[in-house]
Amino acid sequence: MNNSPKKSSIPAATVPRLSQYLRKLQEIQSRGTEKISSRQLAIEVGTNPAQIRKDLSYFGEFGIRGVGYDVDNLIAELKKCLGLGRSWNVIIIGSGKLGTALALYRGFEWQGFNLMGMFDADPKVVGKTRGAGPVMSVDKLEKFLAGNEVHIAIVTTPAAAAQSLIDRVTKAGVPSVLNFAPIRATTDEPAILRQVDLSTELMILSFYLDQ
Amino acid sequence: MNNSPKKSSIPAATVPRLSQYLRKLQEIQSRGTEKISSRQLAIEVGTNPAQIRKDLSYFGEFGIRGVGYDVDNLIAELKKCLGLGRSWNVIIIGSGKLGTALALYRGFEWQGFNLMGMFDADPKVVGKTRGAGPVMSVDKLEKFLAGNEVHIAIVTTPAAAAQSLIDRVTKAGVPSVLNFAPIRATTDEPAILRQVDLSTELMILSFYLDQ
Repeated sequence: MNNSPKKSSIPAATVPRLSQYLRKLQEIQSRGTEKISSRQLAIEVGTNPAQIRKDLSYFGEFGIRGVGYDVDNLIAELKKCLGLGRSWNVIIIGSGKLGTALALYRGFEWQGFNLMGMFDADPKVVGKTRGAGPVMSVDKLEKFLAGNEVHIAIVTTPAAAAQSLIDRVTKAGVPSVLNFAPIRATTDEPAILRQVDLSTELMILSFYLDQ
Repeated sequence: MNNSPKKSSIPAATVPRLSQYLRKLQEIQSRGTEKISSRQLAIEVGTNPAQIRKDLSYFGEFGIRGVGYDVDNLIAELKKCLGLGRSWNVIIIGSGKLGTALALYRGFEWQGFNLMGMFDADPKVVGKTRGAGPVMSVDKLEKFLAGNEVHIAIVTTPAAAAQSLIDRVTKAGVPSVLNFAPIRATTDEPAILRQVDLSTELMILSFYLDQ
């Protein structure tokens, strides 16, 4: 999909920063700015210029000394690198408040993520609209996945239900899961699994507050 | 607060793992298990025993070869290290679906986080109950912070409102912020600022899916 020869050499810790640079550059672009120095970009992002230059060095030396980066060009390179040149199909499992909040999240369409639908185990909720078309029954998950290519499953169910649902979607071939349920989920399948975890975030704050 | 001499030597990358070990150990404890080996704990958490032994080495050599760790003891040490021996006061700013989902999140009380209240800018919402008592007006934020010690402010407002609210709470002395708004927030104050960012998480998945 992406023929950039350097992509595999980009460290894992750099990837979230690239997404932040991209979003900041898109904001800068929308203000009509065409060139930006690493120093200016660093101020906008809240980091230091050396970090930015290091991270952007994976894209080759296309910043020009004294002029800076071409905003359009850098956005295009970052999007290519982040796999955003194509559309990714997303489902949300769990149509509670968090699932609904995520479905209504405006960033979805904007970056090429296509929210295909939402699933819930509660028969009282099935058929209702929660930001992503009528909620489907989790009983129909495998049938849906057999008929639709889904790239990312976002899991927002209660903790007790999350692991078995992650097992079901990855067994059905979904290659990545973003889990919001407060468990440390695992997968036997060769899927990418990422966790967003309020409890961990609060404990990290607690750790630093207590120092 | 915490007299453990080794706390400052714990690397930043270890801290989220410690919180995961703690939650898994609490689950193990609730099943009545008293001892656990690094190998067993590694399987439950979904990591490798060497990582666990390395992370737990900051707590001294109180695992016993062939017997493993005492679950109660390790939980107590991890809680002390993570600053969970005391109660942290939390407010949520933004009472939309995400804010409400977080307010209803069951992990709050359990780990010693005390949700004190919720704020919103919308007069139609003020006074309503969204999981944390009657929603207060953001106009009253400074007055509330002057009269109440708040340790953590969770921001779930729209992007446009987030930075100025983060500035207000940190200027009022709140020492840490957990920002869910889709901006790269910054702070001039010596506060701890962490971001939870759906857009970044999706882009990280996209990066790896595209390889």
